[in-house]
Amino acid sequence: MSHLRSIVALLAVAAGSAAFGADVSVPHDPRGNLLDPLSPFATLYLPRNAPSPVDRVGPKRWTHAYGGPNHNAAFAVSARAPAWIRHGVSWNFPEARAWPLSKERPFGAQIYGIKEALPVQTQSYGNALGVSVVGGVVYAESDDSFAYAINARTGHLIWRASPVGNTLMGNPLVNDNRVYLSAGSVAFNFANVTLYARDPHAAGRGKDISYNGIYCLSAHDGKLLWYFPTAGDAMPTPALAYGALYISTGDGNIYAIDERTGVKRWVTHVGGIANMSSPTVWRHRVFVAMSVLPNIYALDTRTGRILWRGSIPGAANTGMGDVSPAVARGIVVMDAVAHPRTVDGHPTLDTIVRAYDARSGRVLWTHDMGRGPKVPAFKGGVPMIHRGMVYVGSPITSAYQAINVRSGQVAWTWHVPHAGPAGAGRGAPTYYRGVLYISTGPDVYALDPRSGRSIGRHHVGGRFGIVSPTIVGGTIYLGNSWDWIDALPVKAVNPRFHLPL
Amino acid sequence: MSHLRSIVALLAVAAGSAAFGADVSVPHDPRGNLLDPLSPFATLYLPRNAPSPVDRVGPKRWTHAYGGPNHNAAFAVSARAPAWIRHGVSWNFPEARAWPLSKERPFGAQIYGIKEALPVQTQSYGNALGVSVVGGVVYAESDDSFAYAINARTGHLIWRASPVGNTLMGNPLVNDNRVYLSAGSVAFNFANVTLYARDPHAAGRGKDISYNGIYCLSAHDGKLLWYFPTAGDAMPTPALAYGALYISTGDGNIYAIDERTGVKRWVTHVGGIANMSSPTVWRHRVFVAMSVLPNIYALDTRTGRILWRGSIPGAANTGMGDVSPAVARGIVVMDAVAHPRTVDGHPTLDTIVRAYDARSGRVLWTHDMGRGPKVPAFKGGVPMIHRGMVYVGSPITSAYQAINVRSGQVAWTWHVPHAGPAGAGRGAPTYYRGVLYISTGPDVYALDPRSGRSIGRHHVGGRFGIVSPTIVGGTIYLGNSWDWIDALPVKAVNPRFHLPL
Repeated sequence: MSHLRSIVALLAVAAGSAAFGADVSVPHDPRGNLLDPLSPFATLYLPRNAPSPVDRVGPKRWTHAYGGPNHNAAFAVSARAPAWIRHGVSWNFPEARAWPLSKERPFGAQIYGIKEALPVQTQSYGNALGVSVVGGVVYAESDDSFAYAINARTGHLIWRASPVGNTLMGNPLVNDNRVYLSAGSVAFNFANVTLYARDPHAAGRGKDISYNGIYCLSAHDGKLLWYFPTAGDAMPTPALAYGALYISTGDGNIYAIDERTGVKRWVTHVGGIANMSSPTVWRHRVFVAMSVLPNIYALDTRTGRILWRGSIPGAANTGMGDVSPAVARGIVVMDAVAHPRTVDGHPTLDTIVRAYDARSGRVLWTHDMGRGPKVPAFKGGVPMIHRGMVYVGSPITSAYQAINVRSGQVAWTWHVPHAGPAGAGRGAPTYYRGVLYISTGPDVYALDPRSGRSIGRHHVGGRFGIVSPTIVGGTIYLGNSWDWIDALPVKAVNPRFHLPL
Repeated sequence: MSHLRSIVALLAVAAGSAAFGADVSVPHDPRGNLLDPLSPFATLYLPRNAPSPVDRVGPKRWTHAYGGPNHNAAFAVSARAPAWIRHGVSWNFPEARAWPLSKERPFGAQIYGIKEALPVQTQSYGNALGVSVVGGVVYAESDDSFAYAINARTGHLIWRASPVGNTLMGNPLVNDNRVYLSAGSVAFNFANVTLYARDPHAAGRGKDISYNGIYCLSAHDGKLLWYFPTAGDAMPTPALAYGALYISTGDGNIYAIDERTGVKRWVTHVGGIANMSSPTVWRHRVFVAMSVLPNIYALDTRTGRILWRGSIPGAANTGMGDVSPAVARGIVVMDAVAHPRTVDGHPTLDTIVRAYDARSGRVLWTHDMGRGPKVPAFKGGVPMIHRGMVYVGSPITSAYQAINVRSGQVAWTWHVPHAGPAGAGRGAPTYYRGVLYISTGPDVYALDPRSGRSIGRHHVGGRFGIVSPTIVGGTIYLGNSWDWIDALPVKAVNPRFHLPL
């Protein structure tokens, strides 16, 4: 109890001392409210859980969803780094709506059935994407409406914040002691539904539902620094480059926002709906994919001018607006579900992967990963590019493929052994020290990237949504749909793993 | 700080001692989780704030939204009741997403504009309906995802609970030490939107979005007793009669659920969409209104068999599924917006009030309250019946009318002086000791029920959504869209008010 009291004393201090910035005020604003220390949404800051200076290891910043423009969330540490980060740590942090990891069925299975209940838990109560790791701190966004900063070594909470209740479906960006969150839910309100029925191109997702937009917090204590509101949802994670954040929203807009001030630099309306497709920046170009009008756009990061526009022929549903383009060495790789067709009474789809020249938009190759049954919610796979190969999965076939990024030739196909009723293969693989790591279903896998042969598997429990393993030194960090943040040693998945001493 | 510590010690006890029932487990289930005392969604129970036995005054149960089948939420107390309840108390309790009452503009005004931002705050962050008062305790549901039990005398928190994060848009029902909450949001997911575009009658609101349904809690400490999941949203408040709860849902179903066990007695699929229209029970009939297929149904409470079906010709949008039918002495009164027409480039609507014979469904009269500009979100007015008169407002005309319940003759019309950009007049008036009380916009009004003449006004701040003043003895209790629960003496609104000593 004395332990608890000291924690709560800190909570009281955090809540009483203007946890929100002088110029920023959001519901619930704790200033001047005697009941603040008990407010569930007041920012909670526990400074003693912050990492010591020697433990502030790993990347210095986090600029893109899935760890970078190529979506490879792997970060080596030096041989002088502390032993814990080299050997790996193991912990599970329960977030606000944590559901026991031992439960195989999501909470809503009793009413929606397992297949539909899986995305409900991912989209409304747990972590949709993976986590960011910067300077010994794990940052996570959860659809429980909170963002978390966790000590990467101990798994203890440093701060949590819920600036304005909304789902936080992204991978927090971090730079220069600031954290950027993107807020928006999968929802439409009735007015937009009737609008959609009249003109699908005119409706925007997330409008008039909740307080969407980008929230900038202090990485140190979770204090809100600025808020950039958007009418449509900001489900995708922004991209950070050239001092600006680039974000697409559910009402068809693409914004550039100054990262220090939250002031808009430009906005370009391209139409369609942003779902979970996060923009990617490469050499003063930002690549953004949208649904309904299924297009990928290259915009000039300085002006917002559209440089080129591409599509994937036959792209269906939200396929194009869900998947984030991966970019490396002048090539953009994108995929989308396409060609809906009923086969034996069941809806089926293809997954089409396409590579574009980043400068011109010229199509380099197109590849069909194969046909399979339609799955609920996110239907594509996030591509990752590493050393001339694209690694990409698809929940339609519940398989991953390795594809030559120049030729489009498939090197191998690996079928996820336990795909489950909603399919597996959404998250990007992570390439680290000669091995490919994949988190899908309740498991993490290690594959030989040359053959696609499985090297190892570790059962975590819960479910991984559009989650890439974030690897720092000897640890894999993950966000879980059951509303947990998980850390496990790389060697738990790949027994042959060791870092040079 | 010592005060805080003792509160928190209680919090720790509540969280550590199996706050959820042995047979019920929901995210977040606090059992076996070391971090529970800090979990924002763990049930918080502060027993010392419960009322003393002499303060357990007011109604013994709460069976319908707006206080009863006739929607008159007024409850006299005896001359022997404690002085505080006779004279009235004054307090404001900030809920989890409280926005300062002094702020005239809702938080989202900066992005949605005031007109659209008002319903966003009501529907996603604050109290949509008024509060229930039973035995000296105020019970409230908020769209901040929490339910609250507050000491009616002191305004102090007794417990708060958020069984599964979802908006709670109702007026809690209370009976026999149990509290019933209805969970569901205004949202559609994309799959339902595309379904709606193909067939508006087939789509259901709230499906695959979150954990909808009815939650039964202990009135004593907020502990979850049972959960009845529904696929579509359960935005309306159920009706309680004959040992069962009757609820309509966003996927067109009407359920009867045993109030003790949560076991389904029957379900009748009528189609359409339930919005905010709460069922009303009268003599083994339950009256339920739905949208999209704009109908009112009378069902047998014992079997779920449809006894009769009525409509309002030309009913538009969600009008019919938003308004709860009022029932008294064999007459059902219902209204809905109708006849959408563009006038001078602006969308306009009528508000049509209609009375039916409760036994046969025969239409007794139909009255047009007048045409006005379309308003966002809830577009009707909740009717209240008292001593042969219907009192009903409309945000389309921002006016209230008194109508003879037998003839449909209008006695008077009163225009809300400060209607605001989203219109005023949604909540039912409350008739109490010869005066009519109305909460709309940021104000509470007192009217002479014979003439419609204004007697007094009190400015509370924030906004009242579909809120009826709940009057117990000398106090008016209210739920506020700014996420507060407000208590004020009746005499603050009506200076001539006094209770006999």
